[in-house]
Amino acid sequence: MALQNSRVSKLFDIKYPVIQGGMVWCSGWRLASAVSNNGGLGLLGAGSMHPEVLSEHVTKMQQATDKPWGVNVPLLYPEIDRLMDIVVKKGVRIVFTSAGSPGKWTSFLKNQGITVAHVVSNSRFAKKCEEAGVDAVVAEGFEAGGHNGREETTTMTLIPLIKNSTSLPVIAAGGIATGSQFAAAMALGAEGVQIGSLFALSQESSAHEAFKSYCLKAVEGDTFLSLKQLAPVRLLRNKFFDLVREAEQRGASADEMRALLGKGRAKKGMFEGELDEGELEIGQVVALIDEIKPVARIFEELLADYAVAVSRL
Amino acid sequence: MALQNSRVSKLFDIKYPVIQGGMVWCSGWRLASAVSNNGGLGLLGAGSMHPEVLSEHVTKMQQATDKPWGVNVPLLYPEIDRLMDIVVKKGVRIVFTSAGSPGKWTSFLKNQGITVAHVVSNSRFAKKCEEAGVDAVVAEGFEAGGHNGREETTTMTLIPLIKNSTSLPVIAAGGIATGSQFAAAMALGAEGVQIGSLFALSQESSAHEAFKSYCLKAVEGDTFLSLKQLAPVRLLRNKFFDLVREAEQRGASADEMRALLGKGRAKKGMFEGELDEGELEIGQVVALIDEIKPVARIFEELLADYAVAVSRL
Repeated sequence: MALQNSRVSKLFDIKYPVIQGGMVWCSGWRLASAVSNNGGLGLLGAGSMHPEVLSEHVTKMQQATDKPWGVNVPLLYPEIDRLMDIVVKKGVRIVFTSAGSPGKWTSFLKNQGITVAHVVSNSRFAKKCEEAGVDAVVAEGFEAGGHNGREETTTMTLIPLIKNSTSLPVIAAGGIATGSQFAAAMALGAEGVQIGSLFALSQESSAHEAFKSYCLKAVEGDTFLSLKQLAPVRLLRNKFFDLVREAEQRGASADEMRALLGKGRAKKGMFEGELDEGELEIGQVVALIDEIKPVARIFEELLADYAVAVSRL
Repeated sequence: MALQNSRVSKLFDIKYPVIQGGMVWCSGWRLASAVSNNGGLGLLGAGSMHPEVLSEHVTKMQQATDKPWGVNVPLLYPEIDRLMDIVVKKGVRIVFTSAGSPGKWTSFLKNQGITVAHVVSNSRFAKKCEEAGVDAVVAEGFEAGGHNGREETTTMTLIPLIKNSTSLPVIAAGGIATGSQFAAAMALGAEGVQIGSLFALSQESSAHEAFKSYCLKAVEGDTFLSLKQLAPVRLLRNKFFDLVREAEQRGASADEMRALLGKGRAKKGMFEGELDEGELEIGQVVALIDEIKPVARIFEELLADYAVAVSRL
């Protein structure tokens, strides 16, 4: 089937069912508009934006593209009412929600005519999405960067499980940075993919250049799902990571882990480029990424490699 | 490409590039011959057999099929010299080695004209395989049951990494129990798949019926990579598993873990059906398996679903 005809392409009115993850500290209007202008769906990452900052990015986004785009809203956001108010008032048409239950905000958004996708890591939540009236689910596997599910289900296993649990279109996330991985996700039954790490390390990403360069050097086994006592998050090895591992291995309490984590670590690492003290969130696929590319080239290569992978079958 | 034309099919002279993992306590001559007679490659699991027992199974295997088949040999096997002697003397043509370095035994086996595949979980070992003269590598992801790599790399990420590191044919393992997962593995660049859990829970598997029935009830999040301080192994939740988790969470020492594990736990759980005290090894895909089927039906369904998955692309 042509990618243009997938339910995900049609739902969002996009050329390729390629969604850019709305990652914290990476996903401003430059990255999101570049993705949308290249035929995918760009998402502003509201999780790391104050409401006023999101408002500015929405305005810039509206100037930078006439293609569909959206906003990712983590439902644990402290000022979520203000954020949702901006989303509605400024005419955002697509919202991806994550890190919370789809029950609360879906009907509010749907009543405004907004298309809603929700990120899940198990089929129980996929069913909840369907009940709540969500339009599509993002199923995110263990290999994904950043916050992650407690079941540790990998994308390969998760997509068939989610497909068995819901009739909604499924967008696969976690482990997708090449055309062959994109094709594999579609073979599993996904109708689109959400790509994080590859776009986090693109030229247009707002992540700090020091973070991007550091990621290019990462190899297999350099990321681990960490901080499981608090909320599991996939981190790249650095000095802070070593402290976390050491504490985990000696069975530190949740309170100790919270104290060690402190506040603002992800900003420090990913946005301010403090590679020792910061929290560096990235997926396992970082080991496959060895160049910072512009979004246009990422799309070219992804689609060409996708075609090669499909032709192998 | 037709499955018959993959390099893995040609290497082993089999119809479908579907290898049955040589799992401990599951993989006697009944299972392995059924797989070979249905067009795949059956493997006797020598890891749980005394040398004399293996010898018997080889004889029965030779009577039960005229199709190609092999033996899986974990290289940590205590009496490995005797085992290899039997393999050679009884005319075994294919050996899969695992749990060790491919350096030592590959040339011995190759000198006897035996085809050799080796199981790896990272690209460093895939390169070693190529240097050692191995004919194909099995790349096993984090989601696989039983013993597993330390890097926790999932199949989705691992296959492209392994493909980048070697020109050998790659057999994907971990996360494969349906035709869509088979197709996904091939899209990733694998040229064959090794299937464990699905065959461990087949009618012909020598695992205890109580173990099989218990596995059918498993859902998402019921297996975890455990005993990481010793050798990481994916286990299914049961009473023993709970003790392991509790010990891990309080930061128990490696010695404590060794004492807790004791000896013969896998036999107890999987072969003797002691569901509380035994170690139950199975992959994440257990959540997708809800019926004990004969191998013939497993092949029918796998191939039909594979065709459906490919036609979606």
